Amino acid sequence: MTIEIKIEHTTNKKEKPASMDGVVFGTQFTDHMFILDYDAGQGWHDARIVPYQPIMMDPAAKVFHYGQTIFEGLKAYATEDGRVLMFRPTKNIERLNISNERMSIPEVDPELALEALRQLILTDREWIPEGEGNSLYVRPFVIATEPTLGVSPSRQYKFMIILSPVGAYYAEGINPVKIFVESKYVRAVPGGVGMAKTAGNYAAGLKAQEGATELGYSQVLWLDGVHRKYIEEVGSMNVFFKINGIVVTPALNGSILSGITRDSIIQLLKHWDIPVEERILSIDELEEAHKEGKLEEAFGTGTAAVISPMGELNWQGEKMVINEGKTGELSAKLYETLTGIQKGVAEDPFGWTLEVKA
Amino acid sequence: MTIEIKIEHTTNKKEKPASMDGVVFGTQFTDHMFILDYDAGQGWHDARIVPYQPIMMDPAAKVFHYGQTIFEGLKAYATEDGRVLMFRPTKNIERLNISNERMSIPEVDPELALEALRQLILTDREWIPEGEGNSLYVRPFVIATEPTLGVSPSRQYKFMIILSPVGAYYAEGINPVKIFVESKYVRAVPGGVGMAKTAGNYAAGLKAQEGATELGYSQVLWLDGVHRKYIEEVGSMNVFFKINGIVVTPALNGSILSGITRDSIIQLLKHWDIPVEERILSIDELEEAHKEGKLEEAFGTGTAAVISPMGELNWQGEKMVINEGKTGELSAKLYETLTGIQKGVAEDPFGWTLEVKA
Repeated sequence: MTIEIKIEHTTNKKEKPASMDGVVFGTQFTDHMFILDYDAGQGWHDARIVPYQPIMMDPAAKVFHYGQTIFEGLKAYATEDGRVLMFRPTKNIERLNISNERMSIPEVDPELALEALRQLILTDREWIPEGEGNSLYVRPFVIATEPTLGVSPSRQYKFMIILSPVGAYYAEGINPVKIFVESKYVRAVPGGVGMAKTAGNYAAGLKAQEGATELGYSQVLWLDGVHRKYIEEVGSMNVFFKINGIVVTPALNGSILSGITRDSIIQLLKHWDIPVEERILSIDELEEAHKEGKLEEAFGTGTAAVISPMGELNWQGEKMVINEGKTGELSAKLYETLTGIQKGVAEDPFGWTLEVKA
Repeated sequence: MTIEIKIEHTTNKKEKPASMDGVVFGTQFTDHMFILDYDAGQGWHDARIVPYQPIMMDPAAKVFHYGQTIFEGLKAYATEDGRVLMFRPTKNIERLNISNERMSIPEVDPELALEALRQLILTDREWIPEGEGNSLYVRPFVIATEPTLGVSPSRQYKFMIILSPVGAYYAEGINPVKIFVESKYVRAVPGGVGMAKTAGNYAAGLKAQEGATELGYSQVLWLDGVHRKYIEEVGSMNVFFKINGIVVTPALNGSILSGITRDSIIQLLKHWDIPVEERILSIDELEEAHKEGKLEEAFGTGTAAVISPMGELNWQGEKMVINEGKTGELSAKLYETLTGIQKGVAEDPFGWTLEVKA
């Protein structure tokens, strides 16, 4: 299969950051972007890489009014020996289409999506920052562009990919954060769109996040919207707890995002013969485990941070300190192993990395 | 207070529809639009009316990725005696700011918003279609425009208003529609954003709507996301049932939109001494009332349709026909009265209409 992607190179290259120190996540973009158009009756067409630039949007475009949009997030890494690696990109493309299906957006050809990622990353190869913890954040997304106000699936879309060089998530090394257990606001509920990577889920979390920040907490821990007691996610990450030697993460129930880092962690734990359970987990069980000294470690997982240890949970004023507020042994080992695989310095027994070659 | 809105008139007027017959809702737009910008530290600034045109958006704009956006919908009417009326615009502006608050978007000055509505409608006065049932649909909305990928409230926004001439919702007179009671998908849940008029709520409803359409139904009736049995909304409208002489509508519980048509209906019913109750209402109660012959009328309420009678509810295969599938007496009276007030031909005891004067 030949996939034709036209490339228009920029004639006006931007200046790259001299160092990634102090560069805020997702604020710098590379020289090019990928665009693919969809029109009902015609399907997806006109795959192209063009200079990064603003797009013209009709003010009536459905994405502005009805939020029909999905996105993905993954990273490309420059290895010490000069190769470029993507981490499990086919999983992202698979999830992109799961999100598309849920949001009534037409499927994107997975082969074309992978080829688009490959060619765009190669085009902006020199933007991938070298050095420990640095990477190129890759953001594919689809937006509904039909300029009509009827509440119905759009008949026009754009699938785009933009790239952002990002620094180490932990500038001063991996460090636990304090988490506020949210009891007022809810992120998602089974039957809703919590399992899709769609914009509205993130907008829905902003208010709670602001409240947690005001109280000095980094993120909120979301409880389920039905019983208001089962753990769902932390901020926009999946979440794991080590309880009495067993690693527990909430089962995918339709309101939780099926994280690719989450899946990788589960596979790694199984590979290491460390017991891991995907099941329902209540805040009461965590509280009980903490009282008994059995809540040994807690961490969030996601593409941006990879592993984000949690040093404290505030549940209705009760502060549960975990592992004396320090990064746990298992959290650290998972972080080292996963980032090692991603950067091509550790063994990759699962074949997770894909080299991007010219 | 003087509010300065700069006006740039178009030099290239578009052709107006010769007749509103067959014009699909929200597909035609007028010659001008309103824009107001927001930048953190500066606040809202540069209120202006400009020719209707595409806007330039950075592909990283937060609205595309995290759905931070809200909107409103209201109508302006041309009366038979040549006046222009808006219907309860201050209620829309009030709700706009309630939505803004929930979605972590800065408040818009209500006086400026009203003045913007007024001046934009006057600028495009000749676009308001005359004739029974025709009106100018007014769509204010706010979008987050900051081009950064961190999940946090935007530091830049645009508040815009666009106008669309719309025809009678019922081209062949008011007619009941068939409704599918949704048991798989959920629109919203208390603690979420169901009470805000934000894009994600509408995206979340598309899949269920598609399923209902495939089965030959016009809309879905949403049940609550916690118990999966209490009535919430119908499609994107509020919903009312006349049961044994009493009109019942779901109470505002945090997951239901506080509709302005809903509020107007409740006030009209009270004015007429017809008993009306805002309370929880289960699908089981409706089923029971239907069996006993007490489910007398059912209708949705919203800006687009005003009143949309429901002639049949399909609940898990059981078809409940209401009022022999015909428009009920009360539904018809409410429709006549409300549209009469809106068009300036019926008495307006509540002072709901506001004349737009030069």
